Amino acid sequence: MANLLKGKDVADALTAKMTDDVAALKAKGVTPTIAILRVGERPDDLSYEKGAVKRAESVGVGVKSVVLDAEVTQAELIKAVETLNADKSVHGVLMFSPLPKHLDEKAVRAALAPEKDVDCLTEGSLGSVFTGNGKGYAPCTAQACIEILDHYGIDVTGKRAVVVGRSLVIGKPVAQLLLAKNATVTTCHTKTVDMPSVTRGAEIIIVAAGKAGAVTADYVSPGQVIIDVGINVNAEGKLCGDVDFAAVEPIVGAITPVPGGVGSVTTCVLIKHVVDAASKTL
Amino acid sequence: MANLLKGKDVADALTAKMTDDVAALKAKGVTPTIAILRVGERPDDLSYEKGAVKRAESVGVGVKSVVLDAEVTQAELIKAVETLNADKSVHGVLMFSPLPKHLDEKAVRAALAPEKDVDCLTEGSLGSVFTGNGKGYAPCTAQACIEILDHYGIDVTGKRAVVVGRSLVIGKPVAQLLLAKNATVTTCHTKTVDMPSVTRGAEIIIVAAGKAGAVTADYVSPGQVIIDVGINVNAEGKLCGDVDFAAVEPIVGAITPVPGGVGSVTTCVLIKHVVDAASKTL
Repeated sequence: MANLLKGKDVADALTAKMTDDVAALKAKGVTPTIAILRVGERPDDLSYEKGAVKRAESVGVGVKSVVLDAEVTQAELIKAVETLNADKSVHGVLMFSPLPKHLDEKAVRAALAPEKDVDCLTEGSLGSVFTGNGKGYAPCTAQACIEILDHYGIDVTGKRAVVVGRSLVIGKPVAQLLLAKNATVTTCHTKTVDMPSVTRGAEIIIVAAGKAGAVTADYVSPGQVIIDVGINVNAEGKLCGDVDFAAVEPIVGAITPVPGGVGSVTTCVLIKHVVDAASKTL
Repeated sequence: MANLLKGKDVADALTAKMTDDVAALKAKGVTPTIAILRVGERPDDLSYEKGAVKRAESVGVGVKSVVLDAEVTQAELIKAVETLNADKSVHGVLMFSPLPKHLDEKAVRAALAPEKDVDCLTEGSLGSVFTGNGKGYAPCTAQACIEILDHYGIDVTGKRAVVVGRSLVIGKPVAQLLLAKNATVTTCHTKTVDMPSVTRGAEIIIVAAGKAGAVTADYVSPGQVIIDVGINVNAEGKLCGDVDFAAVEPIVGAITPVPGGVGSVTTCVLIKHVVDAASKTL
């Protein structure tokens, strides 16, 4: 039976650390603050926002909500971003996507001040994950995978890590983060031939395929660490990851559950980035 | 005995194509032109410059040489870059590095206009190799590896490609270029444990370790394609790659020689980028 890598344990540890950091910053006159910029009322956005607000408040981070009508014009939205850029009381901006179709999301993202880009919305932040120049924050979900490995003392140095998926939101950046931690990193994707033979040879697998059942018993071997980034709804209407948990868990050494795994750490990382951004303004 | 992947054959084919492209651009009133910005008289720089000028002239691309004294100040050098940025007759800028130690190379690179960055000197261009936004040119040596594979009809789709090395100049970008061509890509480096077991399982190996003899017979298996990016001088004073050619060549399916491999294609790619940059000004 595999060790369960529980997101809650990781989040609790990060939260405790952040609570201290926020208190120290407040003592120096800075209250780390996140601005949440939302267009419309999409249920997914509202759900994530609720979690982020709760997490922020639990560690003493301020929240500034900016809600715009789904019919907002491009100019109005850009103006809202620029106002947040100029607002010295705001240290990080969370902006939901996809935006309604009449908006040019690329241009909106590009308008965000790099130092407030706590969820890797800009090209500059993404580039910095690749170049390792230390200027930008990685996407929160990608960083959450690393936080889980770190929390459980799983040293990736020299280990064979396979990332399943190559999106800019998770697969590509998490591969770079693993490489920066000295793992030997392989990226698999839909064009990979005989993926099970590749993943079975790994010591760590990060699954971000975006599809339930993408990784089954065939793909894994004893002792492996599996981080499941997927969030899907199965035929019974329940949340599930990209990994066939029931089939894989008895084989591997450690695995994140879904729900209760990576997703539970993501908002923590977001707030951690805000605290870090605030500390840089001192 | 392995097929020799000869850089000259690739360069000849690229040159023929470029000659036509340049003629077509000239007919439209544009002469693609490269500016070569050199500080001092380092022998390596002079040697590369000579090759680049020869290649440019052979296809009808104009060359503008800007040579600054090794004692040039930061302000004077930045001024020279800005002058080239503003010069509409210049479509690409080659700048040698490392610069003399008294200069801030990072700042000089950052001063270059993105659209003239034909050798991936700026963070923006590097980032674009990662995000695939199509805005920047990849480092010429990384792109040269891809041109060799393309020329010889080696389709990497779904193939297992291993890159040995993770520098920003070659290892990291070539891994992204291979991924963009749908290879299953693994990056190895000095911290990789049991590298021979990783490289032996690949169908394509790109070696950019920066060390003679980094890849020996142990690392390879029959049928593999080996691209050797290394340029070293051996004990007998002769040029050699990172691969122990004498030991590896009898085992694998195809291999680039050194000299006469990747290095012979690099200046071609540089000039190709200049022609492409010029075509974008139409």
